[in-house]
Amino acid sequence: MARDFIVTPWEVKGEVDYDKLVKQFGTSIISDSLFNKIKKHTGKLHYMLRRKIFFSHRDLDILLNEYEQGKKFALYTGRGPSGHTHMGHIIPWIFTKWLQDAFDAPLYFQITDDEKFLCKPKLTKEETKKFSYENALDLIALGFNPKKTFIIIDTEYSKTLYNIAIQVAKKVTASNAKSVFGFTNETNIGMYFWPAMQAAPCFLPSILSGEKIRTLIPAAIDQDPYWRIARDVAPKLGYLKTAAIHCTFLPALTGPKGKMSTSEGMQSTIFTTDDEKTVKNKIMKYAFSGGKDTLEEHRKHGGNPDIDISYQWLRFLEENDKKLKNIYNDYSSGKLLSGELKQILVNKLNNFLKKHREKKQKAKKQLDKFILKD
Amino acid sequence: MARDFIVTPWEVKGEVDYDKLVKQFGTSIISDSLFNKIKKHTGKLHYMLRRKIFFSHRDLDILLNEYEQGKKFALYTGRGPSGHTHMGHIIPWIFTKWLQDAFDAPLYFQITDDEKFLCKPKLTKEETKKFSYENALDLIALGFNPKKTFIIIDTEYSKTLYNIAIQVAKKVTASNAKSVFGFTNETNIGMYFWPAMQAAPCFLPSILSGEKIRTLIPAAIDQDPYWRIARDVAPKLGYLKTAAIHCTFLPALTGPKGKMSTSEGMQSTIFTTDDEKTVKNKIMKYAFSGGKDTLEEHRKHGGNPDIDISYQWLRFLEENDKKLKNIYNDYSSGKLLSGELKQILVNKLNNFLKKHREKKQKAKKQLDKFILKD
Repeated sequence: MARDFIVTPWEVKGEVDYDKLVKQFGTSIISDSLFNKIKKHTGKLHYMLRRKIFFSHRDLDILLNEYEQGKKFALYTGRGPSGHTHMGHIIPWIFTKWLQDAFDAPLYFQITDDEKFLCKPKLTKEETKKFSYENALDLIALGFNPKKTFIIIDTEYSKTLYNIAIQVAKKVTASNAKSVFGFTNETNIGMYFWPAMQAAPCFLPSILSGEKIRTLIPAAIDQDPYWRIARDVAPKLGYLKTAAIHCTFLPALTGPKGKMSTSEGMQSTIFTTDDEKTVKNKIMKYAFSGGKDTLEEHRKHGGNPDIDISYQWLRFLEENDKKLKNIYNDYSSGKLLSGELKQILVNKLNNFLKKHREKKQKAKKQLDKFILKD
Repeated sequence: MARDFIVTPWEVKGEVDYDKLVKQFGTSIISDSLFNKIKKHTGKLHYMLRRKIFFSHRDLDILLNEYEQGKKFALYTGRGPSGHTHMGHIIPWIFTKWLQDAFDAPLYFQITDDEKFLCKPKLTKEETKKFSYENALDLIALGFNPKKTFIIIDTEYSKTLYNIAIQVAKKVTASNAKSVFGFTNETNIGMYFWPAMQAAPCFLPSILSGEKIRTLIPAAIDQDPYWRIARDVAPKLGYLKTAAIHCTFLPALTGPKGKMSTSEGMQSTIFTTDDEKTVKNKIMKYAFSGGKDTLEEHRKHGGNPDIDISYQWLRFLEENDKKLKNIYNDYSSGKLLSGELKQILVNKLNNFLKKHREKKQKAKKQLDKFILKD
């Protein structure tokens, strides 16, 4: 297969062809009938489903059939706390919150401070712990139900996790881990074990309840390989295979290719900690534009929203379909200039972040209600 | 190097040449001056030191120098709970008890139920947990000080251990683990991580106390490779390298070669759970004899205690040097017959085990005082 793009849990490079990626990963495109099946239960589809931002899945059909037979499921997703939370993290969490409300499902949210400590040579355990708590506040600020949301900070829940993980680990050889995760002989032994720690929350709802509960993982599609091992091992341990629903990547500000990531440089991302001025500066300065070179040309031929990052970001952020469509049309026709389009995004982000900061401040008092302890 | 014997943590085969082994492992023979240094502090030498059953070490000289400067040390040893405790386990524990009393040192005793679960395909977690508690009773029955003895059952102390182990693991590559432990690509990922869990107690006394405390590991010499990684990593994490004192193997009943091990068959071992009749039957039937073929020849030429397993076992069990010497002389001269020598061992073992069973029964009430919990 031609590899004009690369997608692994650690790296997204090139212009991603999502149809090819689905074939490469062996996941399934969400069909119209599956979208309708979701709609049957939720009344309407979330805008990220309507826009096929969430577009791929594993066993979502099976999970919904079970749900129709009255079987509960649990949500599971997470965060690697190597720094501040950015908008690329927030997007799937917004959708996860909707899933929690729509299906009245508990959420297990794993903050993998052990992994980030193990895989980043320069990060200390204290730093990953600090980011764990900060990232947790970003999650709580989105309004998750404290009675149904369980945040796992790996190093603080490691008694429970380790006891599950060794049962997973016994079924996974170094060869398996190498082929799925690309480990080499120079990878440290903590990373070798770590896929078992990551698989543990897939089975935690079943273990804690004593019932067989399937988990559903909402995440960007590059994270899919992480749970292949968990899916392989599940039947061997008597659990149900975890299901997944995958989204495309929020693109980097700086260009239409790849996904937004801190490792691409600070200018490619918007952090939840960025103030209004920083947000404006980053969008105005760095957001890749689909506009024409001169005002005259732009007015005459219009811009290209399909490659314009500000428009692409609004697809992920603007809930109102009509508003979004108007922006698309106005930009295509040349009525809306690039600077004006950027300003729409700046306003959208700064409105969101202003409220988010306030909610994050309040979340500090709620932390204890969310964090699972051994 | 000619390999007419093999010694690894999992296998001892052939007639062990301990001088060669010390060179192969890179440990040091305990010199007379080091024996005298121990004696200076303990008044007299334990019979296992007098007989050079404990014969090799790493950094014991450094540890004693520090001790003379008023620095405390901690003892660390353990047990892999894959079955009942046998005499091959009890011997170094008897010596460890002496070290605890003589140097007023705390003992950290790791019961590695995670490792045995991970490396034995047929053992369940429930079985290794059951043996953990049973083996713990055998340790407690030997009279360890409950105020200074901390038993770690890995799966019950895994929050603390995992948090230390990931710091170790970050410094150890899969290559390191493969070369020290002989892991292959088909070894499970739990075993790959496990050397880090095993290293954790080396640093636990320092972590719990906030002071730099060196640990001393009394163990059979085949266990030495287990702590090479801990020693390599110690300075990188700011800890002192763990020291060790090594003993020879209690031989298998069935022959002068190899060490006693359950995997050699039930007849090669005496378990603490064996009743009087079983002990007598095993020794009489299976204990390899250094006697002559006929009564007449034996009376004339005498037996060979150096290859006689009953005599060899008495070296490990009979504290009284004079008694042991008389047995040696009487057997060599032909005065003592093989059946009589065997009966001496049977009596010695059954006396020991009778008291041990009673103390084990009492130990059940003391368990909670010994087991470390997260």
